[in-house]
Amino acid sequence: MGLLVVGSVAIDSVETPFGKVEEALGGSAVYISIAASYFTAPIRLVGVVGGDFSKAHMQILEDRDIDLEGLQIIKEGKTFRWGGKYHYDLNVRDSLYTDLNVFEKFDPTIPTGFKKSAYVCLGNIDPVLQRKVLSRINKPRLVVGDTMNYWIEHKPKELAETLKVMDVLVVNDSEARLLTNEPNLIKSARRIIAMGPKSVIIKKGEHGALLVTGETIFSAPAYPLENIYDPTGAGDAFAGGFVGWLARTDDLSPENLKRAVIYGSTLASFCVEKFSVEGLRDLAYLHIQDRYRSFMNLSRFDEK
Amino acid sequence: MGLLVVGSVAIDSVETPFGKVEEALGGSAVYISIAASYFTAPIRLVGVVGGDFSKAHMQILEDRDIDLEGLQIIKEGKTFRWGGKYHYDLNVRDSLYTDLNVFEKFDPTIPTGFKKSAYVCLGNIDPVLQRKVLSRINKPRLVVGDTMNYWIEHKPKELAETLKVMDVLVVNDSEARLLTNEPNLIKSARRIIAMGPKSVIIKKGEHGALLVTGETIFSAPAYPLENIYDPTGAGDAFAGGFVGWLARTDDLSPENLKRAVIYGSTLASFCVEKFSVEGLRDLAYLHIQDRYRSFMNLSRFDEK
Repeated sequence: MGLLVVGSVAIDSVETPFGKVEEALGGSAVYISIAASYFTAPIRLVGVVGGDFSKAHMQILEDRDIDLEGLQIIKEGKTFRWGGKYHYDLNVRDSLYTDLNVFEKFDPTIPTGFKKSAYVCLGNIDPVLQRKVLSRINKPRLVVGDTMNYWIEHKPKELAETLKVMDVLVVNDSEARLLTNEPNLIKSARRIIAMGPKSVIIKKGEHGALLVTGETIFSAPAYPLENIYDPTGAGDAFAGGFVGWLARTDDLSPENLKRAVIYGSTLASFCVEKFSVEGLRDLAYLHIQDRYRSFMNLSRFDEK
Repeated sequence: MGLLVVGSVAIDSVETPFGKVEEALGGSAVYISIAASYFTAPIRLVGVVGGDFSKAHMQILEDRDIDLEGLQIIKEGKTFRWGGKYHYDLNVRDSLYTDLNVFEKFDPTIPTGFKKSAYVCLGNIDPVLQRKVLSRINKPRLVVGDTMNYWIEHKPKELAETLKVMDVLVVNDSEARLLTNEPNLIKSARRIIAMGPKSVIIKKGEHGALLVTGETIFSAPAYPLENIYDPTGAGDAFAGGFVGWLARTDDLSPENLKRAVIYGSTLASFCVEKFSVEGLRDLAYLHIQDRYRSFMNLSRFDEK
């Protein structure tokens, strides 16, 4: 089978009201891969880093058995770097800097062994690159993709082409509204489906997530965390848990998509409990299953 | 048993991108009473109107068998009037005018037959008035109350006193955050519980509602409506459905509070499908139960 993940690999410096980290491992492909690694193998990461990407950073990915053959290392360049600061209300953040560095000219190379990946997760990168990756591999069974405001605003036509080849789009609520110019999230999801993807997941942060697939609408709660230390990567951890579960089970039924949404939410909830990828580094599978069951208790009610 | 409802009785003029109504029946006590009337009887409304309150308005309440002995009619005065306009994004609205009129000097009178009401719902009015109502009746089994930003900002001490005598506070997310100065909604709910109420419901509009009671946290989805015509009164319809179900079943267990939250959400979803109280006027109980079951399908997932 195999899950191919493409996206950014970054060095992040993040400050929240609860602490900060410097030069920490980050990037969409990193969070997606680590989250998915609890469910399926092999995970094949496609990305690029510079000479400043440390052995310690690499070790974190190796510890999760992520196949790094598709990770280009440009020794004379610098890794993509992002710095951000979150407010007391963690829904508000300032990007302090975004230095693309080697990511600016990223041209994904796909090792031969990666081409038969049945599952693909396209992290939030230029929609042109997302499509390029797909053009360089055999037709996969499922393509899950992310995007963001920047591409919606600056590359709408390219994004429209990429949406046609995605099976599941995972976006947050403001991105869905921007993409469709429709404030009602259910209508927005239906419009996105009309653009190509068979299924849409709208992430709503502290309010959970919404899955729309065919006639099925599924509303997933958010895990009621009282202490969120660092929201960075939560959306990518969600995508990783989601696609990882699907790759593990190879079942694309609506009922299994719902389970995948809850596994995505589960991994996102672990992600935000610590800084950088720390919350995702060392999870016991039993612990993941326990939290999955907590999600059931959270939203379960009966008839009388 | 009996459910006593106190709050505003109003004449509303509302415009949304989908239409408008003039001189329509409105007010918190009206929405609460009508929503609750599908579950329990008698409903005892305490409020005040002016000479301009029409027979047609009165008839809508009478059609739902609401006991109007506690509705003062001040013939020489005018009814509380509110005018509002909603934006294309229905989460945004402008209040065009708020004329308190007879409501400004409202002093609730409680008919003798109302004093033994086991259930009380305090609509969003001055917390001093809310407490005054409680002081004029026998100790009820359950007091459910609402409040709003205005009272949180302008009468914090009075509100604090009133919270001590409420069993369930029903507020929206921005009100909860303002009341507790805490952006995390779970922490905010716990702080509210420390202020007095045993249970808190935080309404999140399109994102559903959160119930916190003791160790139980329950996340209720919102009904995925594609067409919302008029959001006015949704929060009051929620409170009415919630307290109405509790009065019907007389069961205050956490499991039944969850059901009540879903019945509240159900009535709120009917409310916004038409203008003013039209969506609540003529519901079949089977229709209510059908929608309750839709809420189950919306949030149900299983283990694998």
